[in-house]
Amino acid sequence: MTAEEVPVGQTLDLGSHPVPEEEIIRFASEWDSQYFHIDPAVAQESYFGGLGASGIHTLSIYQRLSVNGLFERYDVIAGKEARHVRFIHPVRAGDVLTGTVFIDSVEHDGRGRATVITTGSLRNQDDVVVLRLQMEALIAANAKST
Amino acid sequence: MTAEEVPVGQTLDLGSHPVPEEEIIRFASEWDSQYFHIDPAVAQESYFGGLGASGIHTLSIYQRLSVNGLFERYDVIAGKEARHVRFIHPVRAGDVLTGTVFIDSVEHDGRGRATVITTGSLRNQDDVVVLRLQMEALIAANAKST
Repeated sequence: MTAEEVPVGQTLDLGSHPVPEEEIIRFASEWDSQYFHIDPAVAQESYFGGLGASGIHTLSIYQRLSVNGLFERYDVIAGKEARHVRFIHPVRAGDVLTGTVFIDSVEHDGRGRATVITTGSLRNQDDVVVLRLQMEALIAANAKST
Repeated sequence: MTAEEVPVGQTLDLGSHPVPEEEIIRFASEWDSQYFHIDPAVAQESYFGGLGASGIHTLSIYQRLSVNGLFERYDVIAGKEARHVRFIHPVRAGDVLTGTVFIDSVEHDGRGRATVITTGSLRNQDDVVVLRLQMEALIAANAKST
């Protein structure tokens, strides 16, 4: 589908992703090896009193949910920018994160492309928001759209 | 080390990370399974004419380099926000990305914590900037610092 079919002004449910301890440790061991992401015993001594997921891991979970629940249906050209990616609340082993995305705007360039701005969030099983962000992506459009 | 020792106003070299095709496909298969990240043949038909790394993968590479080259030496409490994460140029299989980080500011709260703002970037082997971002992190400080 092209950018004309992106539902501006709507909020979409992106489904859920459970976060087992194994995944927290595996992601962080490769990309963010701070002790409070990879060592459950030592993480007990950290500010949050236990293992927590890397923020980049949490963002990756959002990306997975938003690709599967929204973007894969469109002719995406590229992601341009992630803005205000706020790590609001710790993500713990055993959490189940549920995503939603709001379509802020679709701006056509009149030459077959549109800039799509979305605001996304992840909540945990206690309905606490753990991540919020704004994403700007370039999606193919019908060339005549304005 | 505490936030007092973060070198404000300095630019640090974070070293390099090669990006083999296998890593692009493996990361994206789990977190961002758009065809231009995971299918080299079909990606030939994409806007960039070949496989490109997921933006979140590129950001993860920056995180890895910045943890290993800067943050792991400090008593980090948490990442708070990633701002203006701009995916400026495609990252291709075989690229070698080199990171730098500039320490914008360290702001003490007078109660043992400091907000550290850094601006980071990744360049490829042709010295083209592929990623820029600003990161805000909370680092432990001596309680009396102002």
